[in-house]
Amino acid sequence: MNSVLNFDEDLALANRLADAAWSAIRPHFRALSNIDNKAGAGESYDPVTEADRAAEKAMREIIARERPHYGITGEEFGETPSSSGWRWMLDPVDGTRAFVAGLPVWTTLIALVDPMGFPVIGVIDQPVLGERYIGWPGGAALQTPAGRSPLTVSDVPSLADAVISTTDPFILSGPEQSAWSDLRGATRLARYGLDAYAYARLAGGTVHLVAESGLQPWDVAALIPVVTGAGGHATDWTGAPASLGGQVLCTATDTLMEQALTLLAPAAE
Amino acid sequence: MNSVLNFDEDLALANRLADAAWSAIRPHFRALSNIDNKAGAGESYDPVTEADRAAEKAMREIIARERPHYGITGEEFGETPSSSGWRWMLDPVDGTRAFVAGLPVWTTLIALVDPMGFPVIGVIDQPVLGERYIGWPGGAALQTPAGRSPLTVSDVPSLADAVISTTDPFILSGPEQSAWSDLRGATRLARYGLDAYAYARLAGGTVHLVAESGLQPWDVAALIPVVTGAGGHATDWTGAPASLGGQVLCTATDTLMEQALTLLAPAAE
Repeated sequence: MNSVLNFDEDLALANRLADAAWSAIRPHFRALSNIDNKAGAGESYDPVTEADRAAEKAMREIIARERPHYGITGEEFGETPSSSGWRWMLDPVDGTRAFVAGLPVWTTLIALVDPMGFPVIGVIDQPVLGERYIGWPGGAALQTPAGRSPLTVSDVPSLADAVISTTDPFILSGPEQSAWSDLRGATRLARYGLDAYAYARLAGGTVHLVAESGLQPWDVAALIPVVTGAGGHATDWTGAPASLGGQVLCTATDTLMEQALTLLAPAAE
Repeated sequence: MNSVLNFDEDLALANRLADAAWSAIRPHFRALSNIDNKAGAGESYDPVTEADRAAEKAMREIIARERPHYGITGEEFGETPSSSGWRWMLDPVDGTRAFVAGLPVWTTLIALVDPMGFPVIGVIDQPVLGERYIGWPGGAALQTPAGRSPLTVSDVPSLADAVISTTDPFILSGPEQSAWSDLRGATRLARYGLDAYAYARLAGGTVHLVAESGLQPWDVAALIPVVTGAGGHATDWTGAPASLGGQVLCTATDTLMEQALTLLAPAAE
């Protein structure tokens, strides 16, 4: 059904999926702030829910047409079974709170996962910025209207120089908060509220470590090929290969990974 | 020397200042992540410091040439006296931590302050996004490569529906943190780490309240014309007209202002 030889076609499809998602999302972004753009009807109009559902529907239609043997896992519409073992994982609007606040750091996440459950292609798309971060086995690139450039993580020497991120320290468990706090104290500065965009900037070299927990499969699948394709590392908090969910740790370098795993160990599950 | 009749010319000048700032900043944004773009020399190269100084210098040169009678207050190079009473206030990179992390939510702040110390023109420029928020007496607009559209705050009905923001709750004093926490508990959601971009999105209608303290004159001057020009309110935490620094509260509506002042009162100075 599929083979590693088809990645070019799958990357092209992933790009079409991201384009379709943005077409569906665009009328809803910042919509309540501008009556002319108000795309929904009536008082119950919730821009982010509408955007999420419209974009996932648009992507599902393309996959059903072009890859009928592929499964689909999406945040909005659940599971479509796969007859080939291959599966697309979709999160149309990752970072719903940023979306609601009109901030351009939400993203659309698209991943192709192989029959072993390993994500081979990942896309983190931020269309307001025109930034599409793409990862595949052995490489990663940033695609913008100006062109395409390879992504490489930073060679930041140690935690003390590192820019780190987690989406919301208040959703961490007690032990996780304490471990995060130790980690934060050892680093240069921390940023919050970025969801998947933090991993995109890790691949882009300006963020050096991201640690989160409680993630869903569709939150994680797209991040791994982008981070590892750019030369970064993705594990869980015990140092085992990242699985599709739960506690995730991504770092730019081996050294950061070792230092961070030591600090996060008390909260690792 | 000057009169209210000259605002069109001053707005045009403010636009030229913002353009000059971005030309000076651009080589340094995300520079360390890409060796080809590395604009500085040697190990001591600090992108945000270089960007800040180069941009303020570029703006000062234009003002000295075109408005020699105007004073200048800038974050980087201090005070240039005014022989007319009028003064430009400049913060080339507001949001240095966002800049360091490669996030497109830092801004360039430019304000024209009248002889009474009242800011009449404000510009909040985010050039990576191509978003320039401009305010003047009686109006505000968002200028993008696609054109110019009027800015109007949201008519969000109450605190319970409001999206609120402060840059860093950990730099607030003890009483301020406690008041912020009460405020946060009464609202829909809070966003952090945005610096002046939060006020820009308040003018744009997707953020509804921003409360901060410890601000400098050049942090505040540009925000007030943008927020009030879009129909919003700007005060200090006691409800007195916002001064150029200290505790600032901006809201989309009167109702939010009343509700927020009650909650912030215990920490108001």
